[in-house]
Amino acid sequence: MSDHIYKHIQLTGSSALSSDDATRAAIERAAKSVRGMRWFEVIETRGHIENGKVAHWQVTINVGFTLDE
Amino acid sequence: MSDHIYKHIQLTGSSALSSDDATRAAIERAAKSVRGMRWFEVIETRGHIENGKVAHWQVTINVGFTLDE
Amino acid sequence: MSDHIYKHIQLTGSSALSSDDATRAAIERAAKSVRGMRWFEVIETRGHIENGKVAHWQVTINVGFTLDE
Amino acid sequence: MSDHIYKHIQLTGSSALSSDDATRAAIERAAKSVRGMRWFEVIETRGHIENGKVAHWQVTINVGFTLDE
Amino acid sequence: MSDHIYKHIQLTGSSALSSDDATRAAIERAAKSVRGMRWFEVIETRGHIENGKVAHWQVTINVGFTLDE
Amino acid sequence: MSDHIYKHIQLTGSSALSSDDATRAAIERAAKSVRGMRWFEVIETRGHIENGKVAHWQVTINVGFTLDE
Amino acid sequence: MSDHIYKHIQLTGSSALSSDDATRAAIERAAKSVRGMRWFEVIETRGHIENGKVAHWQVTINVGFTLDE
Amino acid sequence: MSDHIYKHIQLTGSSALSSDDATRAAIERAAKSVRGMRWFEVIETRGHIENGKVAHWQVTINVGFTLDE
Amino acid sequence: MSDHIYKHIQLTGSSALSSDDATRAAIERAAKSVRGMRWFEVIETRGHIENGKVAHWQVTINVGFTLDE
Amino acid sequence: MSDHIYKHIQLTGSSALSSDDATRAAIERAAKSVRGMRWFEVIETRGHIENGKVAHWQVTINVGFTLDE
Amino acid sequence: MSDHIYKHIQLTGSSALSSDDATRAAIERAAKSVRGMRWFEVIETRGHIENGKVAHWQVTINVGFTLDE
Amino acid sequence: MSDHIYKHIQLTGSSALSSDDATRAAIERAAKSVRGMRWFEVIETRGHIENGKVAHWQVTINVGFTLDE
Repeated sequence: MSDHIYKHIQLTGSSALSSDDATRAAIERAAKSVRGMRWFEVIETRGHIENGKVAHWQVTINVGFTLDE
Repeated sequence: MSDHIYKHIQLTGSSALSSDDATRAAIERAAKSVRGMRWFEVIETRGHIENGKVAHWQVTINVGFTLDE
Repeated sequence: MSDHIYKHIQLTGSSALSSDDATRAAIERAAKSVRGMRWFEVIETRGHIENGKVAHWQVTINVGFTLDE
Repeated sequence: MSDHIYKHIQLTGSSALSSDDATRAAIERAAKSVRGMRWFEVIETRGHIENGKVAHWQVTINVGFTLDE
Repeated sequence: MSDHIYKHIQLTGSSALSSDDATRAAIERAAKSVRGMRWFEVIETRGHIENGKVAHWQVTINVGFTLDE
Repeated sequence: MSDHIYKHIQLTGSSALSSDDATRAAIERAAKSVRGMRWFEVIETRGHIENGKVAHWQVTINVGFTLDE
Repeated sequence: MSDHIYKHIQLTGSSALSSDDATRAAIERAAKSVRGMRWFEVIETRGHIENGKVAHWQVTINVGFTLDE
Repeated sequence: MSDHIYKHIQLTGSSALSSDDATRAAIERAAKSVRGMRWFEVIETRGHIENGKVAHWQVTINVGFTLDE
Repeated sequence: MSDHIYKHIQLTGSSALSSDDATRAAIERAAKSVRGMRWFEVIETRGHIENGKVAHWQVTINVGFTLDE
Repeated sequence: MSDHIYKHIQLTGSSALSSDDATRAAIERAAKSVRGMRWFEVIETRGHIENGKVAHWQVTINVGFTLDE
Repeated sequence: MSDHIYKHIQLTGSSALSSDDATRAAIERAAKSVRGMRWFEVIETRGHIENGKVAHWQVTINVGFTLDE
Repeated sequence: MSDHIYKHIQLTGSSALSSDDATRAAIERAAKSVRGMRWFEVIETRGHIENGKVAHWQVTINVGFTLDE
C-alpha cells in the first residue's frame, strides 16, 4: 500500500471445503481477468446447509488492485 | 447462491413513484449491459424534497452477478 | 412498549409484489403460531433477480411479542 | 447539495398504508414549519402489529434544509 | 432463498480444531431438533486462550430455516 | 464460555427503577421457562417519558444458554 | 409510538451519581422547554475521571416528542 | 465536557477549498444563531465532482452546545 | 480534551453490584499503574447469569490518559 | 443527485501532502477512464509511517457516476 | 470471564497457511511477553495477493488478559 | 503489511492548525517512545469550539507497529 492508486472490487467465492478456500476461489477466478491485485479484506462469511451439514462456504471479499501498472 | 463466483456492483436508482420503483429502475438499467444478475441488497434509501413533498426516491443497492456463466 | 417483558424473533418474508408485502407475509405467517406480537423492525431488504427484473423481495425483520399475556 | 450550509432534523412519520407513505407523512407535517427542505435519508423502518397484522408503519428519517435562503 | 418464510436462530459453536469446525459443531448440534435449515452467516469469531495458545474457537452464527415445509 | 453449544435469545425487560433492574427483570422472567442461561449482553437501552420524567427503562439483551445440559 | 409524527432531539446529560441519573438530568432539563416528550434511547455513555475515580457520568440520548399535540 | 447539559445539532458545511474549511464554514454559519457551542464531531465527508476534479467538499458534523448558560 | 496527546487503553471491569460499579472497578484498578486518566467511554455491557439471576456485570471501557504530563 | 441512475466505484488515492490531496489524486486518476463522475464519499483514511512521521496519506472513497449520459 | 479486571490489546498476526494460523501466530508471539491471556475476538481478516493467489493471511484480534494475577 | 506481527495502539492528537496536523502530532509524540510504527488509520475526528470558531482539531488514530524488529 505505497503511493499507488487502487481500485476495489467486491467478490463472493464458494467452496465445499473451507471458508479460506472460498476466499482463494474468488481471488483465483478474478485473476483470469484482473491484473495487479494486491490485497483483500473479508467482508462476510456465509454458507448453505443441506441435510443438517455445511454444504458450501460463501465468503465475500473486497479486493484492491493498482490502476497504475 | 450455490457454488458460483459472484461479482458485486453498487448502483443508485431513482423514481418519482416509490422506493421499490427506484430499486427496479436501477436493476432494469443495469440489465442492459450486465448479464447473470442474481440478487440485490438495499444499502441506503434517500430522496429529494421539492416544495415540501418527496420529489424523487433514490435507492442504493448492491447487485451480485455470476462470473461463471 | 410499556412495562411488559418482550421476546424477539427474527423472520424473513418474501413477496413478488413489494418490499412492504414481504414484511406483511412474514408477520402473517408467524401469527399462526406466535401470540402477542406488538412491533417489528426492518433489519435487511434483499431480493432475487430473474431475467434482469426483481423476481422476489425478501425482507428480514425483528418482531417483539409479550411474554406476560 | 451544492455550496449551501444545511441543518439536519430527525423525524418519525406514521402511516397505516405503507412505509413510503410514513416517510411522506413526516415530510409533509414538517413542511408546515420548516422551509428549504432539500433531501432526506431513511434511518429506520419499524411498525406496530395488531391482531397478527401490520397496523402502522413508522419510518425515521434525517431531513436536510438550507440555512442560507 | 426463494419465496419461503424463514425463521432465524443464533447459535455459538465451539471446537479445539478450527473456526470452521466450530461453525460445523453448532449446525450439527442444532440439526438434532431443527428441520429445514438452509443457510448461515458468521456473526462473531472468538476463542479461549490457555497457556499462551488457542484452546477453543467459538463462532456465533445466524441460521435460517423454512417455516413452510 | 468453554466447549458447549449455546443458543441465544433476545429479550426486552422493563423497570421503573433503573436500567440495571430492567435487565434483571428480563432475565428473571426468562428463567421461568429457559434453563442453563449463562451470560447476557446489553443491546439497547431505551425508555418511556411521562410528564417530563423517565417512567420506565427498557433494556434489550441477548442471552446465551447451553443446549447440551 | 402510535400514529403520531415525532421529532427527535439529541442531548447529553451529566451526573456525579450514576449513568441513569445523567439520563434523568438531560430529560428533566429538556422538559423546561420541550413538551410532549415520549421516549428516549441511550446513544453513548462516557465520563470524566479525576484522581483515578469517576467524577461525572455523561450520557447522550435521543429523545422523541410529538409534533401533533 | 464537565457537568453541563448539552444539546446537539447536525450541520453540513461546504467549501471549494478543503474538508477542514467545510467544517469551519458550518460552525461559523451556525454561530450567527447558536450560542455556547463547545465541541464538534465529523460524521461524514463527501463532495461534488465537476470535470473530473473536486468542486466542493461537504462535511457533516455534530455540534454540542450548553443549555445552561 | 484540550491540546494534549492522549493514549487510550481498553479495560473490562466486573461487579456483582451494578453496571456502573463494574466501570468504577476497572478505573480504580487501572489507577494503580496508569497516571493522568481523563475520560472513559463504555464500549460493551455484558454479564454472567447463575441460577437464573445476574451474577456479575462486566463492562468494557476505553480510557484516555495524557502522554504529556 | 436528480433522476439519474448512478454506478459507484471504490478507489484508494495516495499523497505525501495531505489527506484531501489523496482524495484528489484518486479522482483525477479515475477521470482518465471514467466519465460523468458527480460525487464522492470518504470511506476510510489511513497512511504509512516512516521514521516516526507520516510518509503517505491513503484515502478510500466511493465515487458515483451517471450511467445515462 | 468471572470477576477479574481485564486489559485488552489489539494484535495483527500473519500466516501463509490459513486465517486461523494467523490468529495463532499473533497469540503465540504475544505470549512471550504478556501473561494471563484468556480470550480473543477476531476484528478483521485481510491478506496479501501475489501473482493472483493469497500470499499471506493477516488477522487482527483483540486479546483480553487479567490484571489481577 | 507483510509477514510481521503487529501491535496496535490508539492515540488522540491535537492541533489548532488542521485535522491532518492533529494526526501528525499524535504520531510524532508517540515516536519518542514507540519504535517500528508502520501505518495508522483515522478512527474519529472531533474538535473544540471557542467563540464560534474551531479552536482545536482532535483526531483519534490506530497505529500499528511491528513486534518483531
